[in-house]
Amino acid sequence: MTDIENSDSDRHARPLRHARYWTDTSELLLESGARIPEITVCYETYGKLNDARDNAVLICHAISGDSHVARHDDDDDPGWWDLLVGPNRPIDTERYFVVCSNVLGGCRGTTGPNFDDPATGRPYGADFPVITVADMVEVQRRLVAHLEIETLRAVVGGSLGGLQAIEWAVRAPTSLWGCVPVAAAPRLSSQGIAFDVVGRNAIRHDTNFRGGQYYDADGPEAGLALARMLAHITYLSDESMRKKFDPTRLSPRAVDSAFESMFSVGSYLAYQGDKFVERFDANSYVTLSTAMDLFDLGDGAQQLRRALAPSLCRWLLLSFTTDWLYPPQASRHIVDALVAQTKPVSYCNIDSSAGHDSFLLPDSMALGGPMIGAFLAHVGRDPSPKRAPAPRRSEATNIFDSMRVDQEMVVDLIPPRASVVDLGCGHGELLSLLRSRGRGPLLGIERDQEAIAECVGRGLEAIHADLEHGLEAIADQSYDVAVLSQTLQSIVDVAGVLDELLRVAKQVVVSFPNFAHKPMREMLLKEGRVPKAQGFYSYEWYNTPNRRFPSILDFLELCEARGISVARAIYIDSQTGETIDHEPNLNADVAIVALTR
Amino acid sequence: MTDIENSDSDRHARPLRHARYWTDTSELLLESGARIPEITVCYETYGKLNDARDNAVLICHAISGDSHVARHDDDDDPGWWDLLVGPNRPIDTERYFVVCSNVLGGCRGTTGPNFDDPATGRPYGADFPVITVADMVEVQRRLVAHLEIETLRAVVGGSLGGLQAIEWAVRAPTSLWGCVPVAAAPRLSSQGIAFDVVGRNAIRHDTNFRGGQYYDADGPEAGLALARMLAHITYLSDESMRKKFDPTRLSPRAVDSAFESMFSVGSYLAYQGDKFVERFDANSYVTLSTAMDLFDLGDGAQQLRRALAPSLCRWLLLSFTTDWLYPPQASRHIVDALVAQTKPVSYCNIDSSAGHDSFLLPDSMALGGPMIGAFLAHVGRDPSPKRAPAPRRSEATNIFDSMRVDQEMVVDLIPPRASVVDLGCGHGELLSLLRSRGRGPLLGIERDQEAIAECVGRGLEAIHADLEHGLEAIADQSYDVAVLSQTLQSIVDVAGVLDELLRVAKQVVVSFPNFAHKPMREMLLKEGRVPKAQGFYSYEWYNTPNRRFPSILDFLELCEARGISVARAIYIDSQTGETIDHEPNLNADVAIVALTR
Repeated sequence: MTDIENSDSDRHARPLRHARYWTDTSELLLESGARIPEITVCYETYGKLNDARDNAVLICHAISGDSHVARHDDDDDPGWWDLLVGPNRPIDTERYFVVCSNVLGGCRGTTGPNFDDPATGRPYGADFPVITVADMVEVQRRLVAHLEIETLRAVVGGSLGGLQAIEWAVRAPTSLWGCVPVAAAPRLSSQGIAFDVVGRNAIRHDTNFRGGQYYDADGPEAGLALARMLAHITYLSDESMRKKFDPTRLSPRAVDSAFESMFSVGSYLAYQGDKFVERFDANSYVTLSTAMDLFDLGDGAQQLRRALAPSLCRWLLLSFTTDWLYPPQASRHIVDALVAQTKPVSYCNIDSSAGHDSFLLPDSMALGGPMIGAFLAHVGRDPSPKRAPAPRRSEATNIFDSMRVDQEMVVDLIPPRASVVDLGCGHGELLSLLRSRGRGPLLGIERDQEAIAECVGRGLEAIHADLEHGLEAIADQSYDVAVLSQTLQSIVDVAGVLDELLRVAKQVVVSFPNFAHKPMREMLLKEGRVPKAQGFYSYEWYNTPNRRFPSILDFLELCEARGISVARAIYIDSQTGETIDHEPNLNADVAIVALTR
Repeated sequence: MTDIENSDSDRHARPLRHARYWTDTSELLLESGARIPEITVCYETYGKLNDARDNAVLICHAISGDSHVARHDDDDDPGWWDLLVGPNRPIDTERYFVVCSNVLGGCRGTTGPNFDDPATGRPYGADFPVITVADMVEVQRRLVAHLEIETLRAVVGGSLGGLQAIEWAVRAPTSLWGCVPVAAAPRLSSQGIAFDVVGRNAIRHDTNFRGGQYYDADGPEAGLALARMLAHITYLSDESMRKKFDPTRLSPRAVDSAFESMFSVGSYLAYQGDKFVERFDANSYVTLSTAMDLFDLGDGAQQLRRALAPSLCRWLLLSFTTDWLYPPQASRHIVDALVAQTKPVSYCNIDSSAGHDSFLLPDSMALGGPMIGAFLAHVGRDPSPKRAPAPRRSEATNIFDSMRVDQEMVVDLIPPRASVVDLGCGHGELLSLLRSRGRGPLLGIERDQEAIAECVGRGLEAIHADLEHGLEAIADQSYDVAVLSQTLQSIVDVAGVLDELLRVAKQVVVSFPNFAHKPMREMLLKEGRVPKAQGFYSYEWYNTPNRRFPSILDFLELCEARGISVARAIYIDSQTGETIDHEPNLNADVAIVALTR
């Protein structure tokens, strides 16, 4: 028997007991040029707006969501993001004033196709104008103004909600301090659009669609259910479907449905499809999915940079490894376009098997929820808060963390007030040190997701990326200094990464272990063993994560061959902490060099 | 404007001028227990059956294909696999007698839902029994018997055709020498089934479906078109759709269709959907897609091994990197189950951006076509042909290829008639040498696809796999000898791979470079440079593909620590070719050791 959950996003239609309705009688001019004479907005709020009116967080819902983001009290129906929103939750309603409204074009209280068109006196139906995400945001801006909030602490949303958050940042840059798009992208892929097209065709070709005027009769239930089934597949992942349905492939749950239920996955889809038509309007589905498909910040890095140029806020983007509707690499395009303009942005690609729906699931958001919470705590009127909360303790992600004798020396090599990018920043120790010593702006790049979460927890900007390609998005000479601290040994393309560091920064500081240190020479000469140093190098030749073994001489020769100048060099004995001036290639085990082109 | 090609698989309905029809009046007992009183088979043949009757190749078509696999002459309509089938093509019709028949349940001449049910005198329609791939193969077996062919040279097919090829191998093991499933898997994923379920629901919920009895009226054209649109998305890849539609996203080609054409990908799908309904029967689509979904060799390695146990033929499996309908890892499950039983199998995962449809496309089959051709040339009555055709020259895939002084010595360490698995076999030089010296059976494992193609070209069995995990499928002690020749340095998990080698073989022969060779010691001691050896090691410290740098002593210590015995060891100076007996860790630059547990 297949387990069919009643997931948060699939509640049956029910009254929204805490919803408020506000009607704005001024005409809404849509992006298309069409007009809607008046707009009713259904919204819910949580917590209290403080006296400074600077603790408001707007949450935007996904295609099938509504204003009921969380339960208001124990007796209330579940909300679609109870996981994140509530007292002492990451989006803490005891700290923030949370607002969530049903989108324009929706069917849960805000003006949409199921509203009467004042011009005709009958429902808009399929005549409801084509709307865009920008139009949705315009309505939200009116609501926020109505609530007398000048600047939002942050706009947060997943999927279609994430698109709205992005739109807020570029359309109303002075109206928010923080932007948190989750599982979102600059545009849907052609594959994603294709699935939506098939879904809309299924709705419109249902004979009950009647050109969209079905409100007095049976609606296009089969078509809407087909569209939902199809979309539902794209919200899951190959992996999650395998886990869910493979053990019971041909043992479907008996569902009372007119749809095929030969396979367990079929009975699940039948159930999801049937349930959706009870609570959703087909015209709304067509309207909202079209808006998703039309959202487009442009193709290519240049267009995307231009689109994001107006943004003034800090960003936190989250994606999920198995999301194939808004895949991680698409979220990365936004990150890259922001990084290219040195706008403050953090990004984490969260490891999850659950696909696009991950943003609604506890396991997947165990890392993401606290990151959003930390981000909200660090954004506000003051863009770079001094207060750094105690970091979470986590496993060191760099084998050298425990012995970073060189960190203070690296800081000494960096000019006051210099901007710094740290490639392989780990959990942000060096960056925190740099911040406390007045350097900034700062950006970390790190491949470990827990370390990224820790950086965000410290209020640092950090990008989750492969170190070999982590700098590509950064514009030439964007930073005063780039740091590569005890990371050189794990780099495959050493020369390429050095070139990249020198491209993005005026000066590069590299620290690395010296494999021509005297004990190592002796080990090879006298013992015939390939060197493994003490302390730093507790691994054996057959299991070390290092893959490069430079001596100081080797490194300096590489620099010379590539036209890289050594502005300063410090050589140390990490056992004693002493600086070595005499024959460093023999006597030092760590080198710290400042390079320029 | 979006380019809409008239692809081979999407020809408009047309008469099959060269088709023959054979009616078998004996009852067909289906796997389900249902019966079909008589069967008509539509088939085409190419080339001539030789006197030995051992040159017949059966080709099986995919869901929307038919018997017309290739054009018969210049005036003929294009076939769906002209790419591979014809004079001097990989499946050379001047050399082989090629047979292709429309499948049972199809709608292009073979008995299917559009045939009259003798019991009622009206078309079977939706009452056509549920059939399986096994039933399709049973009908093909009758046809092959009718053609008086005892044993097929090979059965070749892609997608649903690949499933039929697999079924042949397990159902009629003595009836074929070779099996070539392309873009196929032991079972469809739950995600894949889900798409099919939505497609079938779209057909059955079309009001024109009329319970499947629509032959006298308008058929469920919208439903069938929707199913086709959806399936079409799964045949492409995210990447190929991006290339095809992103540049013209909102500039659709003007198609005369009732389906949405707001987006270019939408107009393309509308066109594909409309075109498909002109040539395909909805009941057939339901029948064949259900058969695909029901095909299931079992879940898990054990079930799969049991399912494939009857097979007696040689195998060549091809998958495509971007195929997400029958993804590479699923094809690999078949390969692994065969390897686990030391059945002769080659496998290549071809790099292609075109998704599942790659098997129909020239670019993707540029490597695969010749591999199929070479495979056909090497299978037949004699399962291990002596004649090795001149291999294609390709780039050496191993940096040591040019200097494999140790190859003869490796051969000397391998007992006569020993079976051998070669991890990192490159383009098969050592394996060819071993074959010419009477060793066998032989299996190569290699990560480079061109090298795999070359191995298959030499008539060797070779598996395209990551070296770190390439041995996992092999059963304990399946081979007399496992070889790791000049590959140790690129292995991450050295100890794990050594354990694996000793698990799968009684003896392991490893050759590796000695980084404690005298010149290297001197380089580090005197020059303070991390060693780079001459000849073998033309790379620098910062760009070498090596990541392990063992000395002979280091290696022997590792063996001792892990309870591995050194049965024999040969140390050489590769510059002179001499064997080194005195202080090999100082004087030899290459070691060849035979290990046992």
